[in-house]
Amino acid sequence: MPVIDQLIEKIIDTQNPTCVGLDTIADYLPEDLIAGADTPAAIAERIYAFNQKIIDSVCDIVPAVKIQIACYEMYGAAGIDCFERTANYAKDKGLFVIADGKRNDIGNTAGFYAAAFLGEKATCAVDFLTVNGYLGTDGIQPFVDVCKRNEKGLFALVKTSNPSSGELQDLLLQDGRTVYEYMGGLVEKWGAELVGRYGYSSVGAVVGATHPMQAARLRERFPGMFFLIPGYGAQGGNAGMIRYSFDIRGLGGIVNNSRGVLCAYKKKGGTYYEAARQACIDMQKDLAAVIGRMGK
Amino acid sequence: MPVIDQLIEKIIDTQNPTCVGLDTIADYLPEDLIAGADTPAAIAERIYAFNQKIIDSVCDIVPAVKIQIACYEMYGAAGIDCFERTANYAKDKGLFVIADGKRNDIGNTAGFYAAAFLGEKATCAVDFLTVNGYLGTDGIQPFVDVCKRNEKGLFALVKTSNPSSGELQDLLLQDGRTVYEYMGGLVEKWGAELVGRYGYSSVGAVVGATHPMQAARLRERFPGMFFLIPGYGAQGGNAGMIRYSFDIRGLGGIVNNSRGVLCAYKKKGGTYYEAARQACIDMQKDLAAVIGRMGK
Repeated sequence: MPVIDQLIEKIIDTQNPTCVGLDTIADYLPEDLIAGADTPAAIAERIYAFNQKIIDSVCDIVPAVKIQIACYEMYGAAGIDCFERTANYAKDKGLFVIADGKRNDIGNTAGFYAAAFLGEKATCAVDFLTVNGYLGTDGIQPFVDVCKRNEKGLFALVKTSNPSSGELQDLLLQDGRTVYEYMGGLVEKWGAELVGRYGYSSVGAVVGATHPMQAARLRERFPGMFFLIPGYGAQGGNAGMIRYSFDIRGLGGIVNNSRGVLCAYKKKGGTYYEAARQACIDMQKDLAAVIGRMGK
Repeated sequence: MPVIDQLIEKIIDTQNPTCVGLDTIADYLPEDLIAGADTPAAIAERIYAFNQKIIDSVCDIVPAVKIQIACYEMYGAAGIDCFERTANYAKDKGLFVIADGKRNDIGNTAGFYAAAFLGEKATCAVDFLTVNGYLGTDGIQPFVDVCKRNEKGLFALVKTSNPSSGELQDLLLQDGRTVYEYMGGLVEKWGAELVGRYGYSSVGAVVGATHPMQAARLRERFPGMFFLIPGYGAQGGNAGMIRYSFDIRGLGGIVNNSRGVLCAYKKKGGTYYEAARQACIDMQKDLAAVIGRMGK
């Protein structure tokens, strides 16, 4: 079954179109958990312990985690080991794993990244990888090829959540389209052979919660494009802004929350993992109010 | 001294505007060197041994290496350890190290990548990192900030060497510019405060050897932009196509060659490291014929 169908069914089962962003950095850890860790390996070990507890605490109510690779690369090889173990632990707990790496390169090199994260010999259990399509089709095709072979998926950057995203992405082309719409068209093409039974492709798009007008436009124009939606919470995106990314079945996207979950305990008190679980429950309710019941 | 000035002086000293691309994969290694390596850690160890010999063999005649991170990420944490050791070994041998990762993300996350490769606590000795500016200024500024602090540099993708690069990059905007020219303008802005005594900024651009017309246009439009030039050799770029990237002093770019150096022994015979050195000498002569003497 295409991985996008598997993810959608898990979203329907949990009635929760969200993922927990494991953008775990040392500053997010409670003091007693990080105290004394003064080497990359020691910090990475503490981060892994933190991630495990978060995963244990939320794995029955959320369908997926999104792991931000930059947070792990900071600690070199020890950090990557922590990333791999986090991914594998989440997978063991039944969660879908989205590796947020925004990888990109020319054809044969893109194939190495595809192998690293989605290949048969990958050292980490990843279901979806984020990619950046600035290099065009031959930089993405190797990822798509591996996805076809291994029931994996991609989310390609289309309209990102950051304040400067419009600088390049909103530029108007001579044919009247914006750069992000053009990129959307490429993504649709890349995913054309990976459309599943819900009408969505395993090659989806990153569309930030913070740009609702653009999201609405993309949803209308590309009905078969599943969205990975960052920017909820700390970055300023809210449920009202996100509703346009979903179709009438309540499907079409998965909303990420990182700091709002990992650091909930700093605002709400309690243990970090109980606060994280409560933040997930609150977010689910917040989204359900605008998306409604997700059904087949 | 800005890192771009240091690199330019090394290029002048060696009279060699090239870097050796350590895109090392298992297939490139002589059979006796890779035989029996059947775990990621074992393969990574052999790749490191191969890289060391290559570095030893070329470090007095080339100014820099470009290490393609994808090739190392394939082997997980063991691969990243190999990447770090390769970077550190090259640095110890007096080479400039360009980490080719094409990293990109939103502001605070971009800061983690910047820390990973260019920060005070980075676990690898990297002088320049390649980045992808699709997300706009706030996705690049954290890299620039670290470059300012630590005498490091960047190469941002502008016009890439792959066949599909034109798909997005050559699109015409409503103001008559192409997307790649617009990106060039952003890169110029990002590097404005990092211009050194040769008139070039430590924030440069990736401009493929395979698109000479576009390279000429960028050279004319952005005289302070130093180019990292991939695509020579195996990808079809040659010296005649590259000359337009250089100014009348013979400065302005550094040309990468990966397979043509690492795999020279497969065509020419001899040991892989002697053949690599000869390939570097041949390339230097080939470029000198069109660029002339590089002078201050």
